[in-house]
Amino acid sequence: MSAEPTAPRPAGPTVGIIGGGQLARMMLEAASALAIDVRLLATTSDESAPGVWPHTTVVDALDDAAIGEFATACDILTFDHELVDPEVLDALERHGHVLRPGARALSFSDKAQQRTRLAAAGLPVPRFAVVGNLDELEGFVGAVGGWPVVMKPPRGGYDGRGVHIVDTPEAGLAVLEGTGGPVVVEEFLDMEAELAVVVVTRASGGQVRYPVMQTVQVEGICHVVTCPAPLSAALLDEADRVAASVAEIVNAVGVLAVELFVSNGRVLVNEVAPRPHNSGHLTIEACTTSQFENHLRAVLDWPLGETTLLAPAAAMVNVIGETGAGDPATNRAEALTASGAHVHLYGKTWRDGRKLGHVTALGPDVQTARDTAQRAHDALQGR
Amino acid sequence: MSAEPTAPRPAGPTVGIIGGGQLARMMLEAASALAIDVRLLATTSDESAPGVWPHTTVVDALDDAAIGEFATACDILTFDHELVDPEVLDALERHGHVLRPGARALSFSDKAQQRTRLAAAGLPVPRFAVVGNLDELEGFVGAVGGWPVVMKPPRGGYDGRGVHIVDTPEAGLAVLEGTGGPVVVEEFLDMEAELAVVVVTRASGGQVRYPVMQTVQVEGICHVVTCPAPLSAALLDEADRVAASVAEIVNAVGVLAVELFVSNGRVLVNEVAPRPHNSGHLTIEACTTSQFENHLRAVLDWPLGETTLLAPAAAMVNVIGETGAGDPATNRAEALTASGAHVHLYGKTWRDGRKLGHVTALGPDVQTARDTAQRAHDALQGR
Repeated sequence: MSAEPTAPRPAGPTVGIIGGGQLARMMLEAASALAIDVRLLATTSDESAPGVWPHTTVVDALDDAAIGEFATACDILTFDHELVDPEVLDALERHGHVLRPGARALSFSDKAQQRTRLAAAGLPVPRFAVVGNLDELEGFVGAVGGWPVVMKPPRGGYDGRGVHIVDTPEAGLAVLEGTGGPVVVEEFLDMEAELAVVVVTRASGGQVRYPVMQTVQVEGICHVVTCPAPLSAALLDEADRVAASVAEIVNAVGVLAVELFVSNGRVLVNEVAPRPHNSGHLTIEACTTSQFENHLRAVLDWPLGETTLLAPAAAMVNVIGETGAGDPATNRAEALTASGAHVHLYGKTWRDGRKLGHVTALGPDVQTARDTAQRAHDALQGR
Repeated sequence: MSAEPTAPRPAGPTVGIIGGGQLARMMLEAASALAIDVRLLATTSDESAPGVWPHTTVVDALDDAAIGEFATACDILTFDHELVDPEVLDALERHGHVLRPGARALSFSDKAQQRTRLAAAGLPVPRFAVVGNLDELEGFVGAVGGWPVVMKPPRGGYDGRGVHIVDTPEAGLAVLEGTGGPVVVEEFLDMEAELAVVVVTRASGGQVRYPVMQTVQVEGICHVVTCPAPLSAALLDEADRVAASVAEIVNAVGVLAVELFVSNGRVLVNEVAPRPHNSGHLTIEACTTSQFENHLRAVLDWPLGETTLLAPAAAMVNVIGETGAGDPATNRAEALTASGAHVHLYGKTWRDGRKLGHVTALGPDVQTARDTAQRAHDALQGR
């Protein structure tokens, strides 16, 4: 479908968003307020954003041809996810299309590249290796003092998919064989906290960063984000400083989310994502400017907005499809009895384990905000 | 155009919005976050909302047939403006369609009905009469102590259109003849301030009200809104209490904006508008729940959200087409240098005197917030 607008096209450059997930949807909500001329390229009929945007092209797959044709109708391309084939991205840049972030920054979504380059730049990362066979894996295990270790295929994994905690050679071999190529292996850390810093970089340079968030993962999927993170000022400063450096090394444009581990009193870079990120969803209500608006401002090379927290604390709880819970949209009225809860649903069909929405709340402290969001979340899940 | 969605239809009732202006557009931004199933009925190709919503039907005129057909595809109808023919509304209700607000509440947009009914209910209003000829007009002028008086046709006027300050019988006769029917005439007040209270009433009952706003009009068009209004607690309480009563008398559902005069230390009801209102635009960023989200929650009979102000003060400045200024969208980057300014543009083509957008800012006090918003406004106007 390619619906034609009935209203006049807005002034200014046309931003093409590749990918029709909830990140695109929340960018579109920000784009509407600023009357930004956005076109959307989405796949399948079950994504989040096409249901709320008239200027949408739906294709079977985000291949060379589809993206190439889409790119010609846009001045700037940006992304809802980092799953586009790197060769397609390189070709687009060679043909003169403007990618923000660019192909080089997007190549950091390969976890092997990411780790290797960040370590080479002197940034703190967990001990790791890129291994291709059992010998190399066992060599790494020996070097870090034994099992378990964490194994991650370099590409395609997100939301905990593809992250394996491995405690025997047999299990390690199974991951190697299942991946069919090099695998990132890293030490199993004694984790004190997981953090995330959302960094925004303007196309012509200049950076703003949001307050450091604490993330709570369950089986590798982000469940809860809270702010401020309950750590010493020194550790928060270090997290902020590391994230700023990461964005520079990555050559980021737009939002770059830097996920961090705190282990043995040190901040280590876990992963980077070159796009708006789940850890920044609470910025919609909790900060002066949302990550989605700032992402668009950054890729348009407009001045970036303030990232200040508007309340003493904020919390976000993801709404993830639960077996037996059904569509959370049927429980919106109940959820909205939680006074102060901001309910976001993405318009996606229910599937077990699928991110279907999130709830944000502000509060006088993290626990109060989290309780409010959790109450709305539980109501959405029919509890 | 009636674009078909590619995503699945969201769960829950279908809300049909009649009218495609900026109020609809801002409702849609709230609807997207809550995954509310909305259909839009708009006229012409130059309205604000069709450019940002795929589930849009565009018709030549909002006549009986167009609205009737649209209504059959919706569970609940609500409105971007109050300009629909009252007979069409009555017919819809007779045919069993659910109008929120209902036809009775919408009939209050007739200024003669409004004044007469509010006065009959004992609410404070300016001295007024509904006059059909020069004799009656001169009788009223004699009763209030002389010219000038204010004359308003009962329907169709908004943004100052149709409000006449009249100081001679000849000018009064011209208004009577130009209207071709009864005209509301009221005393010319010594105005201390103009206020507005946005009241939200849930379909099954229950009301929330936003903090009292001060509005600054230039030639009858709202230019600036600030909050809190700089009046005594007693006057603010009176404004709040009067607005609450007005909403009950009107039988409002959804947002009802109550515009008030302060004159000689008294609060008087000026006008009511049974829809989201310009005086409530700053609630998008300045309050826990925006008037647009609360309007949708109210018409869906969902619990209403908190209306608390998130900062000590907030201000909104309208972006109105100025001769020679051109399209404000071309100046967005400059406007966004005003740190903390929230720029909203409606995607409408420039026309002198047309509301094209608004800017909101929060601040430690009204003056600071207003300065920030004004700075962004001036940049949008190319100054």
